[in-house]
Amino acid sequence: DFIHALEEVKPAFGVHEEDLQECTKGGVLKYSSAIDDILNRGTRAIKQARESDRFNFSSILMHGPPGSGKTALAAAIGLASEFPFIRLISPDAMVGMSEAAKVQFIDNTFRDAYKSPLNVLVVDDIEGLIDYVPIGPRFASTVLRALMVRLKKSPPEGHRLIVISTTSSYTVLRQLDMLGCFNDEIGVPNLGSLDEFARVLEATRFSDAAGRKQVLQSLASVVSEVNVPIKKTLFNIDTARFGENPVQDLVELMVESTTPLRR
Amino acid sequence: DFIHALEEVKPAFGVHEEDLQECTKGGVLKYSSAIDDILNRGTRAIKQARESDRFNFSSILMHGPPGSGKTALAAAIGLASEFPFIRLISPDAMVGMSEAAKVQFIDNTFRDAYKSPLNVLVVDDIEGLIDYVPIGPRFASTVLRALMVRLKKSPPEGHRLIVISTTSSYTVLRQLDMLGCFNDEIGVPNLGSLDEFARVLEATRFSDAAGRKQVLQSLASVVSEVNVPIKKTLFNIDTARFGENPVQDLVELMVESTTPLRR
Amino acid sequence: DFIHALEEVKPAFGVHEEDLQECTKGGVLKYSSAIDDILNRGTRAIKQARESDRFNFSSILMHGPPGSGKTALAAAIGLASEFPFIRLISPDAMVGMSEAAKVQFIDNTFRDAYKSPLNVLVVDDIEGLIDYVPIGPRFASTVLRALMVRLKKSPPEGHRLIVISTTSSYTVLRQLDMLGCFNDEIGVPNLGSLDEFARVLEATRFSDAAGRKQVLQSLASVVSEVNVPIKKTLFNIDTARFGENPVQDLVELMVESTTPLRR
Amino acid sequence: DFIHALEEVKPAFGVHEEDLQECTKGGVLKYSSAIDDILNRGTRAIKQARESDRFNFSSILMHGPPGSGKTALAAAIGLASEFPFIRLISPDAMVGMSEAAKVQFIDNTFRDAYKSPLNVLVVDDIEGLIDYVPIGPRFASTVLRALMVRLKKSPPEGHRLIVISTTSSYTVLRQLDMLGCFNDEIGVPNLGSLDEFARVLEATRFSDAAGRKQVLQSLASVVSEVNVPIKKTLFNIDTARFGENPVQDLVELMVESTTPLRR
Amino acid sequence: DFIHALEEVKPAFGVHEEDLQECTKGGVLKYSSAIDDILNRGTRAIKQARESDRFNFSSILMHGPPGSGKTALAAAIGLASEFPFIRLISPDAMVGMSEAAKVQFIDNTFRDAYKSPLNVLVVDDIEGLIDYVPIGPRFASTVLRALMVRLKKSPPEGHRLIVISTTSSYTVLRQLDMLGCFNDEIGVPNLGSLDEFARVLEATRFSDAAGRKQVLQSLASVVSEVNVPIKKTLFNIDTARFGENPVQDLVELMVESTTPLRR
Amino acid sequence: DFIHALEEVKPAFGVHEEDLQECTKGGVLKYSSAIDDILNRGTRAIKQARESDRFNFSSILMHGPPGSGKTALAAAIGLASEFPFIRLISPDAMVGMSEAAKVQFIDNTFRDAYKSPLNVLVVDDIEGLIDYVPIGPRFASTVLRALMVRLKKSPPEGHRLIVISTTSSYTVLRQLDMLGCFNDEIGVPNLGSLDEFARVLEATRFSDAAGRKQVLQSLASVVSEVNVPIKKTLFNIDTARFGENPVQDLVELMVESTTPLRR
Ligand SMILES: Nc1ncnc2c1ncn2[C@@H]1O[C@H](COP(=O)(O)OP(=O)(O)OP(=O)(O)O)[C@@H](O)[C@H]1O
Ligand SMILES: Nc1ncnc2c1ncn2[C@@H]1O[C@H](COP(=O)(O)OP(=O)(O)OP(=O)(O)O)[C@@H](O)[C@H]1O
Ligand SMILES: Nc1ncnc2c1ncn2[C@@H]1O[C@H](COP(=O)(O)OP(=O)(O)OP(=O)(O)O)[C@@H](O)[C@H]1O
Ligand SMILES: Nc1ncnc2c1ncn2[C@@H]1O[C@H](COP(=O)(O)OP(=O)(O)OP(=O)(O)O)[C@@H](O)[C@H]1O
Ligand SMILES: Nc1ncnc2c1ncn2[C@@H]1O[C@H](COP(=O)(O)OP(=O)(O)OP(=O)(O)O)[C@@H](O)[C@H]1O
Ligand SMILES: Nc1ncnc2c1ncn2[C@@H]1O[C@H](COP(=O)(O)OP(=O)(O)OP(=O)(O)O)[C@@H](O)[C@H]1O
Ligand SMILES: [Mg+2]
Ligand SMILES: [Mg+2]
Ligand SMILES: [Mg+2]
Ligand SMILES: [Mg+2]
Ligand SMILES: [Mg+2]
Ligand SMILES: [Mg+2]
Repeated sequence: DFIHALEEVKPAFGVHEEDLQECTKGGVLKYSSAIDDILNRGTRAIKQARESDRFNFSSILMHGPPGSGKTALAAAIGLASEFPFIRLISPDAMVGMSEAAKVQFIDNTFRDAYKSPLNVLVVDDIEGLIDYVPIGPRFASTVLRALMVRLKKSPPEGHRLIVISTTSSYTVLRQLDMLGCFNDEIGVPNLGSLDEFARVLEATRFSDAAGRKQVLQSLASVVSEVNVPIKKTLFNIDTARFGENPVQDLVELMVESTTPLRR
Repeated sequence: DFIHALEEVKPAFGVHEEDLQECTKGGVLKYSSAIDDILNRGTRAIKQARESDRFNFSSILMHGPPGSGKTALAAAIGLASEFPFIRLISPDAMVGMSEAAKVQFIDNTFRDAYKSPLNVLVVDDIEGLIDYVPIGPRFASTVLRALMVRLKKSPPEGHRLIVISTTSSYTVLRQLDMLGCFNDEIGVPNLGSLDEFARVLEATRFSDAAGRKQVLQSLASVVSEVNVPIKKTLFNIDTARFGENPVQDLVELMVESTTPLRR
Repeated sequence: DFIHALEEVKPAFGVHEEDLQECTKGGVLKYSSAIDDILNRGTRAIKQARESDRFNFSSILMHGPPGSGKTALAAAIGLASEFPFIRLISPDAMVGMSEAAKVQFIDNTFRDAYKSPLNVLVVDDIEGLIDYVPIGPRFASTVLRALMVRLKKSPPEGHRLIVISTTSSYTVLRQLDMLGCFNDEIGVPNLGSLDEFARVLEATRFSDAAGRKQVLQSLASVVSEVNVPIKKTLFNIDTARFGENPVQDLVELMVESTTPLRR
Repeated sequence: DFIHALEEVKPAFGVHEEDLQECTKGGVLKYSSAIDDILNRGTRAIKQARESDRFNFSSILMHGPPGSGKTALAAAIGLASEFPFIRLISPDAMVGMSEAAKVQFIDNTFRDAYKSPLNVLVVDDIEGLIDYVPIGPRFASTVLRALMVRLKKSPPEGHRLIVISTTSSYTVLRQLDMLGCFNDEIGVPNLGSLDEFARVLEATRFSDAAGRKQVLQSLASVVSEVNVPIKKTLFNIDTARFGENPVQDLVELMVESTTPLRR
Repeated sequence: DFIHALEEVKPAFGVHEEDLQECTKGGVLKYSSAIDDILNRGTRAIKQARESDRFNFSSILMHGPPGSGKTALAAAIGLASEFPFIRLISPDAMVGMSEAAKVQFIDNTFRDAYKSPLNVLVVDDIEGLIDYVPIGPRFASTVLRALMVRLKKSPPEGHRLIVISTTSSYTVLRQLDMLGCFNDEIGVPNLGSLDEFARVLEATRFSDAAGRKQVLQSLASVVSEVNVPIKKTLFNIDTARFGENPVQDLVELMVESTTPLRR
Repeated sequence: DFIHALEEVKPAFGVHEEDLQECTKGGVLKYSSAIDDILNRGTRAIKQARESDRFNFSSILMHGPPGSGKTALAAAIGLASEFPFIRLISPDAMVGMSEAAKVQFIDNTFRDAYKSPLNVLVVDDIEGLIDYVPIGPRFASTVLRALMVRLKKSPPEGHRLIVISTTSSYTVLRQLDMLGCFNDEIGVPNLGSLDEFARVLEATRFSDAAGRKQVLQSLASVVSEVNVPIKKTLFNIDTARFGENPVQDLVELMVESTTPLRR
């Protein structure tokens, strides 16, 4: 089992496991076939990265709505590679840095990622990395440039690198002419059908079987399907536990999340 | 009684009580059921923050028109948690700081908020914190980024944090792609019905019973409902006391506030 | 008499009288009932500022066309308060300062205005203070932020402060989301009817009774009412005195001012 | 005669005569009654500046198309005042200065202009002073602010100052909200009728009487009136002298100038 | 054979062969007549550069969609010239440099390119060099200016230089008024017909003859022609080798690449 | 003969001949009467500059499409003046300078141009000098201001200066309000009729008489006239010499240049 592997791998050198494992803390629930497809596509990419005769470099883009699970999936695929060098670039680490410092930081991390024979780099939340803000719009253009150069550059011979990037704004990346930097693109969807939601309810052991059934029935009487990111879904389930009437509260929270008020 | 608790709590350590109590100086009048709902939702969030097995972090957004009482309510909920660490981030403290200094300040306050087992942080007036101005529009994008990163980041294990933010511009936050930073949203409305106004009149002991009745009758003959923030309502009531004819002055002030001239 | 008081008051401490008296040098002619209303509203605000149990802070906005007399009226109301601390913040004093220096200057003046028990601050020409220019539009956003924070902040207990601000661009303030900073708004109009003009003519002793009558008759044959700020009106009257035919010159100048060529 | 006075005056102190006389080097030809009116209006303003009981400060704006003679007329009126302090602020002197240095320069010059009892300041080419460029548009906003403050500020008691400003872009000044800085406005037109052109031809002694007549007749057969600034007119007349056929060349040049190709 | 020559040439001095050969690592497959035409036009330009009596300088622009092979072709033409000085300017080398440093770098490289009698310079990815980003749009205007000056300037007498530039954004270059900098333009197309794809399949020895036939048949049943850059085509072929069903995977990948989802 | 003079003149002092002669290296072919008119107008301007009683300064603008020959013509006219001081300001010399340094450079060159009794300054490529880029649009506004001031300022008495400027963007100069800086404007057109092209073919001795005839006939069968700048025309003629079939290649190149693909 692909994901199961996660727990057994302890790469010897260069891995900042804590960071990436932090990202998958909530686990990867296989709540739909779309999740299986994503993990298979990830497996193929890792295999190519390890064995291809022609390319010692590839660059994958995971894109989907906020909270849909991109970071968790990218981290899971990266960790499952068992490559000796695995690392994460994320906006967290760079808050308050000047643009120049960010460029330096990115460049150094990429250079490090050329050092072992097999390397994985997770470049998380590209809009965050380039400080993209839709109003304006604004972004750090030197950071963007540094990323674009690095995302197209093979490591020196004898070294192999796969970069897995994530974004919540596919459109923005297209507008920035960044799509040419990726060799493949993988879409990550929101939770859709009530069946998928049922599987999450079960996996998180919400209430008891009767309670879960009631939730699904009540929900089905209001909406035909949900459109809620897995992250929000898991939080709603948790919040409801602390309400006075968990079953009713969860239904309300899921309905609110599916049809948010537009103010 | 939830709010009553406020007066008894004297947290032992790390609380900047003065700041937050300053924010609720005018009290929290329960002038409508909407206010009760808001306080209940706050109670549930605090309970989850204290007891959840799955999440040691949550982030709530209170939004509503200027003067509707967001800051007072956020402060009241925060203070009522009785958490040992309670603190406020507001534009006040940062006037005249460079962007870099602001980022530092925010970051330090968040780091402090990881230190005790149970922590509350009130992040007041997000537009103010990021120096948002509608003309342009302009804002401090590095401050925005720092906030966005912090509003999504869990504290280290063994620590729990709930962040309560406020904004008068829900739309702006959506345009800034900030809504994904919050786990829940609570709307705070203006004073609407004349009944609600009646309850405020009584609570503030304006004039005598006859005078209040006269105010309400005169008002009802001009407008069917008011649409005035609680803050402005309380100021109008006070201003009227110093006019030559308080009852008439108050009616005029409330009408002016309900239907402001558009110049 | 409200205005009469002006001449007798000599506050003991902290007043920069020269500055404010400079602003009312041309006097406050009671040429219409609108002027009386404005002065009454000012009186009530001063009274509330001195005596209110609930609020130790208020903030008033005077707005109207350029030259309509906002600064003179704000200064007159401020001086008439007889508060021990009376001071003026105006663009004059800040020409050539950096944005940071301006923020410092404003902040210091406000802090000073917390020192005596009763304080008045005239914040003159807000657009000027924030270097607002309609083309762009441009403005100093850190200065704007500093003002917005200060215009909403009560002084420490035991101190009372009333701030009287002026602006020629009510619309701009609304677009800047600044209106929420003021507890009350007072509009100042241009000179409108010929009667009002007649009162100004008399008060300034232009020509003799016959001359004034001739001016008014000639004017009435061309325009049914004027729309000229008091400041321009007083200058026109003075200019005409130096023409070869004062009566005719004044009529021409008032007509030009009422219907300016649009180029 | 107003202009005649120019040659006789030799103010004792503080005048930078060279600068201003340089501006009127080409003389002021009285080629139309509009020019007479402008000079009369100038005379009245100077008289008011010298003698008014109410105002010790005034500020005049001369506006008109490029090359229409604004600078020459402003300089002529200023020099004719015979005031002891006469000075010029123009973009020339400030090329390459930083914005801050420009603000300093302007401020110092105004302060100097408060030193003698009677002072004239010519503020030439306001768009140039504020580095206005229509594309953008751009301009130096701190310089603009410095000018706006100074153009509204009276000198200390005992001193009198008249400022005469020029601009080719009345519209821009209106868009910049600068018009409120001036007490009076004087328009300067282009050369219009062929009669006016005839007077200039004569005054400049172009060709002989027959040649001039031929120019006017040829021109009249092509255009019914010209629309050429006096500056360009004088240059065309000079250029034609060096062509192989001066009369024909001048007609061509005046037609080109009247109906410029729009590319 | 033009391209064959590549492998034999070892220029004596000043060539940074590694850089340029890196660019053609994947080879130049002659998969269509368009490729032949491009190479012929390149040959003529090199000949003119070497032998012209009138011009000792020329500047060629290669333009086409991302991944279409511009850089590989420019490098191949450059290397085939056998000129003693051959060098590459690309965004890679300049990541993180300040604008000023970039200008210096470009200028120095051009100066170096005047040193030997025959010089080739490949200026790769002009948008990248000037940090062009479509959102805004933004770009480094001093770098742009430096390039524009250098792309129009002949070397000193006795020296000959040909510059081969590449861009993915012909439109942007036109909007930047850069097209006037080039003496000739060469378009590089995407892979179009299935025949062209067949030739690439063969050259890369994908699967066996039967497998290739199957790929082409399956593809033909879905799309009548492809529109995929050679770079992406080669990557797809490689990826498919690592799937569980290479033939089917390749068809899917080519279809996805031809009709990308528009999100 | 005007142009012939070029070769004989060797001014004694202050001329940077190399620079200007570099600009006319390709010669000035008299391929149409428009070229004669331009040279005549240049002659008249030089004569006026040398001899006028009224003006010791003039400023001419040469404008036309890219490559139409503006720089070569400006340099030819300047060199033909035989003035003792002749110099060139062009973007070349200023690449990589800061804006401030550019202003300094321009100012110094103008000051130098006041030193001898007769001075010519060629100010080449104004858009380049001010770093104008259509996207934005952007430009160096302090450099623009410096130029505008200098282009209107006469040298001190006893000195004469003529400035000849060039631009490819007449429209931009109008939008920048720069046209008021020039006393005269001269348009430079592209090659238009096939006759003009024939004259260039002959002058450059392309192929033999039969070959030239064939070129013209083939061309005439495709297009009725060309619209190609002289610079591009001369380059095309040279390129064709190195093709396998020069006559056919030249026809193709001229057609491509006349009707460029719009991508
Ligand atoms: N099948 C799944 N795929 C992804 N995440 C899952 C899945 N099942 C459970 N999770 C949990 O859901 C959460 C998804 O959050 P994650 O931060 O990965 O989303 P995201 O799309 O990166 O969000 P953001 O847009 O905010 O960056 C994680 O806590 C993860 O452990
Ligand atoms: N039910 C209530 N809810 C909130 N505030 C109340 C209530 N009753 C009375 N108040 C008083 O009303 C005032 C509300 O002002 P507050 O500053 O909290 O509003 P706000 O929405 O944060 O305003 P702003 O948009 O300016 O930040 C406070 O002084 C508070 O004490
Ligand atoms: N009733 C009046 N109200 C106000 N000003 C008056 C009145 N009567 C006379 N004045 C005189 O008119 C002038 C008004 O100018 P003031 O500077 O106050 O106008 P303003 O509206 O502030 O102008 P600006 O828009 O330029 O700031 C002052 O000189 C004042 O003394
Ligand atoms: N009646 C006149 N009015 C103004 N200028 C005149 C007149 N007669 C002759 N002249 C001459 O015409 C020229 C006008 O140029 P001037 O620089 O004053 O114009 P301007 O409007 O200031 O131009 P710009 O818009 O370029 O600043 C001067 O040389 C002046 O001596
Ligand atoms: N006929 C060909 N023309 C160009 N490249 C080819 C050809 N055949 C194979 N290739 C290979 O295809 C790849 C083309 O990639 P290249 O980087 O040159 O494209 P590009 O257009 O410069 O891309 P980008 O727009 O990303 O700069 C190279 O690896 C090259 O070796
Ligand atoms: N009649 C002519 N007029 C101008 N240039 C000519 C003529 N005959 C030949 N030439 C040659 O044509 C070329 C014109 O190029 P030049 O650089 O002067 O054009 P330009 O309009 O300044 O171009 P750009 O817009 O790029 O600045 C020069 O090499 C010049 O020697
Ligand atoms: Mg994520
Ligand atoms: Mg608040
Ligand atoms: Mg005022
Ligand atoms: Mg002028
Ligand atoms: Mg490339
Ligand atoms: Mg040129």
